[in-house]
Amino acid sequence: MDEVALTLSRENPVFVAYALAASLMLLKLLLQPWMTVFRMMKVRAGFRSPEDVKRSPINPTPDPAQLEPNEYVERSRRLNLNDLESIPAFLVAGLLFVLAEPPLLLAHILLWTYVIARAAHFVAYVTAQVHDIRATLWTVSSLSVLVMVVYTLVRVLGR
Amino acid sequence: MDEVALTLSRENPVFVAYALAASLMLLKLLLQPWMTVFRMMKVRAGFRSPEDVKRSPINPTPDPAQLEPNEYVERSRRLNLNDLESIPAFLVAGLLFVLAEPPLLLAHILLWTYVIARAAHFVAYVTAQVHDIRATLWTVSSLSVLVMVVYTLVRVLGR
Amino acid sequence: MDEVALTLSRENPVFVAYALAASLMLLKLLLQPWMTVFRMMKVRAGFRSPEDVKRSPINPTPDPAQLEPNEYVERSRRLNLNDLESIPAFLVAGLLFVLAEPPLLLAHILLWTYVIARAAHFVAYVTAQVHDIRATLWTVSSLSVLVMVVYTLVRVLGR
Repeated sequence: MDEVALTLSRENPVFVAYALAASLMLLKLLLQPWMTVFRMMKVRAGFRSPEDVKRSPINPTPDPAQLEPNEYVERSRRLNLNDLESIPAFLVAGLLFVLAEPPLLLAHILLWTYVIARAAHFVAYVTAQVHDIRATLWTVSSLSVLVMVVYTLVRVLGR
Repeated sequence: MDEVALTLSRENPVFVAYALAASLMLLKLLLQPWMTVFRMMKVRAGFRSPEDVKRSPINPTPDPAQLEPNEYVERSRRLNLNDLESIPAFLVAGLLFVLAEPPLLLAHILLWTYVIARAAHFVAYVTAQVHDIRATLWTVSSLSVLVMVVYTLVRVLGR
Repeated sequence: MDEVALTLSRENPVFVAYALAASLMLLKLLLQPWMTVFRMMKVRAGFRSPEDVKRSPINPTPDPAQLEPNEYVERSRRLNLNDLESIPAFLVAGLLFVLAEPPLLLAHILLWTYVIARAAHFVAYVTAQVHDIRATLWTVSSLSVLVMVVYTLVRVLGR
């Protein structure tokens, strides 16, 4: 079996590292809206559509004030928006990076730097740490994806 | 031709199912902003940038009130944001799921559950159904993608 | 080495064109939040989380007014949201389009139409050109991705 055919298979350790990191980040991306839903149900507020203040089994005692922004819910929405700005780009950049056949060590460093920085960013944001901590962690995660993209560009242009 | 080389080709029925479902969801993702534009043009309101109330062929009689949020337009924007929270994750999770070589039946069940749940979610949201219906359909679509990611993770870790 | 195995390799000129266009659009997607950060730091306003008006090395003289929307910062956020609505869809649609093995000329036309239209859209948006110019450029970019998706659909259904 030839080298190229194996790039996106479990025989390629760079792909395996990517598939693992990507799956973890997909879980994060998919579970953040569940946190928003959990928070909305807990405080019964922070809804966004007019029909959400109609009486229903989930909302037995509706109130127009439920449509006003609620910081507890909005924090989870901002986390979700932040994920949307970062994780889809990581997922595609990482796949192209795998196809550019980087050294395994570089792949491990960039992929896990991203995952760890995003996990720490989540903790810092949920616990409302001062902006500088969040900004530093966001910068680290952004730089690791940028390095993947630049590596891919150099390999594509340098063929 | 070997098995691995075929994973992302039209010879692999799992990939064909994914490519079809992914293309349909891409159309949904790409056409939702057209619905927002259509609604903005129809009511000539719900604009978002200050320069959108300058006189132009599209907007011959501008009015500062056109920058205020308009529920008819905002509903389409919320639909778009909801797509952004869901569809890119589905697209990448589905591709990794194909690479994890699942049984064809499982692939069909998960892919089409997602597509049908999202289509029904769209109808429920556009027609402003009570929150519980929308929430149920969203939950079904989210769970089908989560199962794909967990399947991929188990296959990657269990190699 | 067979044809299929090469679809996602640097031996395939369609993939090379895609990898180049996708990397450039990933850079755009990743750098837009840096523009938002730059603008927030420059005007020391337009922050979004309550903890951002705590005293810190980055924000030595905090003021609650820093949490109010600031048009200079909001414009960069709208650009980012516009990127999120467009670029991830392009990245995935483009990859599926490569796998559908289009003619090289068609690939070049669609990929570079998208990249050039998005670059021009960015310039039009940053400089607050009248809505019609921005809308035209957005339409061109959206249509080029739609053609990629329709091409992929036809190839998948027509196998």
